[in-house]
Amino acid sequence: SRGYSITLLPGDGIGPEVVSVAKDALALAGSYEGIEFRFREMMVGGAALDKVGLPLPEETLEVAKQSDAVLLGAIGGYKWDANEKHLKPETGLLQLRAGLGVFANLRPATVLPQLIDSSTLKREVAEGVDIMVVRELTGGIYFGKPRGFGHNEKGEDIGFNTEVYSASEIDRIARVAFEVARKRQGKLCSVDKANVLEASMLWRRRVTALATEFPDVTLSHMYVDNAAMQLVRDPKQFDTIVTNNIFGDILSDEASMLTGSIGMLPSASVSESVWDLDSFEPIHGSAPDIAGQDKANPLATVLSVAMLLRYGLGEENAAKRIENAVIETLDRGFRTGDIFSTGMTLVGCRRMGEEVLKCM
Amino acid sequence: SRGYSITLLPGDGIGPEVVSVAKDALALAGSYEGIEFRFREMMVGGAALDKVGLPLPEETLEVAKQSDAVLLGAIGGYKWDANEKHLKPETGLLQLRAGLGVFANLRPATVLPQLIDSSTLKREVAEGVDIMVVRELTGGIYFGKPRGFGHNEKGEDIGFNTEVYSASEIDRIARVAFEVARKRQGKLCSVDKANVLEASMLWRRRVTALATEFPDVTLSHMYVDNAAMQLVRDPKQFDTIVTNNIFGDILSDEASMLTGSIGMLPSASVSESVWDLDSFEPIHGSAPDIAGQDKANPLATVLSVAMLLRYGLGEENAAKRIENAVIETLDRGFRTGDIFSTGMTLVGCRRMGEEVLKCM
Ligand SMILES: CC(C)[C@H](C(=O)O)[C@@H](O)C(=O)O
Ligand SMILES: CC(C)[C@H](C(=O)O)[C@@H](O)C(=O)O
Repeated sequence: SRGYSITLLPGDGIGPEVVSVAKDALALAGSYEGIEFRFREMMVGGAALDKVGLPLPEETLEVAKQSDAVLLGAIGGYKWDANEKHLKPETGLLQLRAGLGVFANLRPATVLPQLIDSSTLKREVAEGVDIMVVRELTGGIYFGKPRGFGHNEKGEDIGFNTEVYSASEIDRIARVAFEVARKRQGKLCSVDKANVLEASMLWRRRVTALATEFPDVTLSHMYVDNAAMQLVRDPKQFDTIVTNNIFGDILSDEASMLTGSIGMLPSASVSESVWDLDSFEPIHGSAPDIAGQDKANPLATVLSVAMLLRYGLGEENAAKRIENAVIETLDRGFRTGDIFSTGMTLVGCRRMGEEVLKCM
Repeated sequence: SRGYSITLLPGDGIGPEVVSVAKDALALAGSYEGIEFRFREMMVGGAALDKVGLPLPEETLEVAKQSDAVLLGAIGGYKWDANEKHLKPETGLLQLRAGLGVFANLRPATVLPQLIDSSTLKREVAEGVDIMVVRELTGGIYFGKPRGFGHNEKGEDIGFNTEVYSASEIDRIARVAFEVARKRQGKLCSVDKANVLEASMLWRRRVTALATEFPDVTLSHMYVDNAAMQLVRDPKQFDTIVTNNIFGDILSDEASMLTGSIGMLPSASVSESVWDLDSFEPIHGSAPDIAGQDKANPLATVLSVAMLLRYGLGEENAAKRIENAVIETLDRGFRTGDIFSTGMTLVGCRRMGEEVLKCM
């Protein structure tokens, strides 16, 4: 029987609840398919800050690197919001991304027919939306130097950051995006602000040059402000979107909310090629206001585990088993609060997990 | 009788068509109220590039500075998209903003009952949305230095920009936003990325400190990715939003598209206080694909002229006259293509203008 080691990083807020459900789903799917998992749970984010005073303990990164895949819950919370930068939970997440070298973040925004009424968009606008946002994850303004605080010539306080991309950073994320688009509808939209920013001008130039290697993919370009509008106006026009770290942060969240069920959306963070994925997490945040109340929707994390099986481990059968179980659970009418509508059965996080297990 | 000098900057694409209609509306409203306007039309953007090889000729800035208010159409087009940075139409717009010192951009996103069906949002989500985005306009990554192209230590091409804010830049935009919020529902949401960016950490600190001067305004903070989601999830939660230049570019466009009638939305760009406004323009772009075809919706520019009268010149009666005429024209069923729905009368840009004049 095959065996894999999985690093679990529950993190903060609802992270531990949803990761616990997803772990059980992974273990059960594995047992049906003759796969054995060794789990190691490590600390990251606020949880690590509280215990050892660092948002990413060295041991966590070491264990993660040596495992076959990483499953992350969520990170951050009001409690640590006023912390200095090096003691913010978010800094641990950024260190983890950099440490694992996961430079490409794949964020699907798919409207499920069962949940279309949760979308704030009109049915005819939301129906059939299926977007993949490929976000650059280890560069740009998140990591650019110089950064910090200082004083200007008038002696005033200033805060500054650097948006910077190199040719190779752009090329590798664009390559992933072209490959992803090729496996989808063959349409790639690159989003930038090349009418203003030099970093975006280089971005557009490199992406355009790479397109000749992917003649089967139709490339278009869009300014970020227009993209933010077009997502609202007609989201179906998009297939695959590729963009930088900060624009991807904003647009992927906007896109996921269009589906009305952000509690359902998984994500994958890729290192070298589409087939060498390393880290998986739900798109939603740590939701501190409902943490520990058994109210969270665990399905985004369960579906992240399906992505982990498919892309991280190549275990297609087990991935399908989990995805089918989720669909069946929805079809049987079970809903957490975030996706509840009249006539459905309202359940908590644990119960939702149990129902998914029953369907496997 | 009172007299004012107005600089008209039609610019590119549909700019000339919509500015021509708005100019007539301004002149007629003035004649009813005993106000005389002296108009001077100057070049900016691609139009200026084509004629004199510069996106903002010196004379344009000089004339604008000496006038009582500026009315801008739109800027940019495919034709100049490949130009180098200093020869881009957009560079002219940025030079104009910097030259006039208009550091605060007020962008309303209001859903008109007559046009609610144009929104892609469900009626109950869109109904009553009334947001004012106050965007910082002359700082941040749009203007920060160093910027440009270069090479990294591996000899690779890089492109870079600097996001930078000083304490006084933050304070003055925050002050405008608090004043605006005070005149609205008294709720101000400051949007930043203070969990990652130092420039945002300073932003949050300064805005928070200023709040003590405005005890009648309720201040909240939101991360930009969450704001992009919340605008889709429940736009009615927002009253006034204040944010930096690039986040404001993205979020104001997203917010305006939520209304479904971006062709209706004016904007004002403010210099020293809310009552010392300088430049007015529609939110929409130059729409090169429909330029010169008499298809554009002139109402955003007509409503920009109403803002010009109210905030730029203190001519409330003339402003009201124009706004009422626009509402009446909609009530009489006239619609340009962008806001057309069955049962209404489809008209072009010029005809829409004539109908508004008739209602004055
Ligand atoms: C928590 C935060 C640092 C993070 C980001 O901005 O990348 C989050 O918003 C995300 O999108 O994963
Ligand atoms: C044309 C462009 C430079 C401009 C901007 O980014 O500010 C436009 O998008 C706007 O919002 O007015």
